[in-house]
Amino acid sequence: MNKIVENMLTRRSVRNFKKDQISVEDLSTILLAGSYAPSGMGMQSWKFTAIQNTDTMKKVNESIRQTLLTIPIVAETHPYIVSLIKNAEDENSNFLYNAPTYIIVSNLIDNKNAMPDSALAIGNMMLAAHSLGIGSCWLNQLPGFTNMSLIREIMTVLEIPKNHIIYGSVVMGYAAEEPAPAAPRKNVIHII
Amino acid sequence: MNKIVENMLTRRSVRNFKKDQISVEDLSTILLAGSYAPSGMGMQSWKFTAIQNTDTMKKVNESIRQTLLTIPIVAETHPYIVSLIKNAEDENSNFLYNAPTYIIVSNLIDNKNAMPDSALAIGNMMLAAHSLGIGSCWLNQLPGFTNMSLIREIMTVLEIPKNHIIYGSVVMGYAAEEPAPAAPRKNVIHII
Repeated sequence: MNKIVENMLTRRSVRNFKKDQISVEDLSTILLAGSYAPSGMGMQSWKFTAIQNTDTMKKVNESIRQTLLTIPIVAETHPYIVSLIKNAEDENSNFLYNAPTYIIVSNLIDNKNAMPDSALAIGNMMLAAHSLGIGSCWLNQLPGFTNMSLIREIMTVLEIPKNHIIYGSVVMGYAAEEPAPAAPRKNVIHII
Repeated sequence: MNKIVENMLTRRSVRNFKKDQISVEDLSTILLAGSYAPSGMGMQSWKFTAIQNTDTMKKVNESIRQTLLTIPIVAETHPYIVSLIKNAEDENSNFLYNAPTYIIVSNLIDNKNAMPDSALAIGNMMLAAHSLGIGSCWLNQLPGFTNMSLIREIMTVLEIPKNHIIYGSVVMGYAAEEPAPAAPRKNVIHII
């Protein structure tokens, strides 16, 4: 097995990070890798907003926390969302796993390929990060809330274009502990 | 730059293939790489249907061609779709770039993470293929037509589950010509 495939098989989602920041050089390599993902019709209509500034990170986290507090818990609320809303009651809760780096991928609201294009870019970034010894985890809070007012406000602060929505985001940093081994792969392959 | 990032920067979409088939060993490695992509909540709810059988490939192509012929051309029809419909009038048209291998990624219709999950799996497959000297190209015909009757019929033949839709597909094979260099990357990176 070559190093490229091995890198894919050993990548794990990391949710517990050291405080050490990743270097601008490594971050640039990761973002460059993202920009080389394929995009439908070669549009490259995405934008990658990478946050390492501590104050900005706190503001983003607080926007997520305050947004969660606006969501009513009803019978249909997914148990995972319920747990997030309950966490939001603690003002010290961190929804970005206390990671030192957070990358938001936004894209045109009316580009039909925006979701897969954005996912492919984040996929490249996570694999590039792992190849540099950097852990990462896809986060879905912001995409889920992309049209809620507090999130739109912070998107304006982050200079995310008005005609964009957030399709995905990813936290990055050095793993504070060895992640658990991958769950067994399901039998999903059919060769004809 | 390490080999993993270099592999991303040198991968290009390939649309012109040699007739040589890729080996079952390489195909298995590629599918395995896809299965190690992250999935929301670790669901792995996707299915990878890889077609190398010539007759089945012809049937899939014919289903796409016949489906295209059912689409009326109106003022709003996208020029790309118009060109596909016109190509469909030629019974020898091949919508799979005459590639020897075609992989369809289907996933649960009601899994909200199915699109990014499927894209991440295809991303891994394209990068793994490139690392093995195999070219690939994401194809959007089947996803676009996943609910049309002729496509549902061929999906049944391919044993794609009834509660699945097609989120993406990819052709693979050995490039018959050197692909053009990547277009310049757009200025989409913002570091805060």
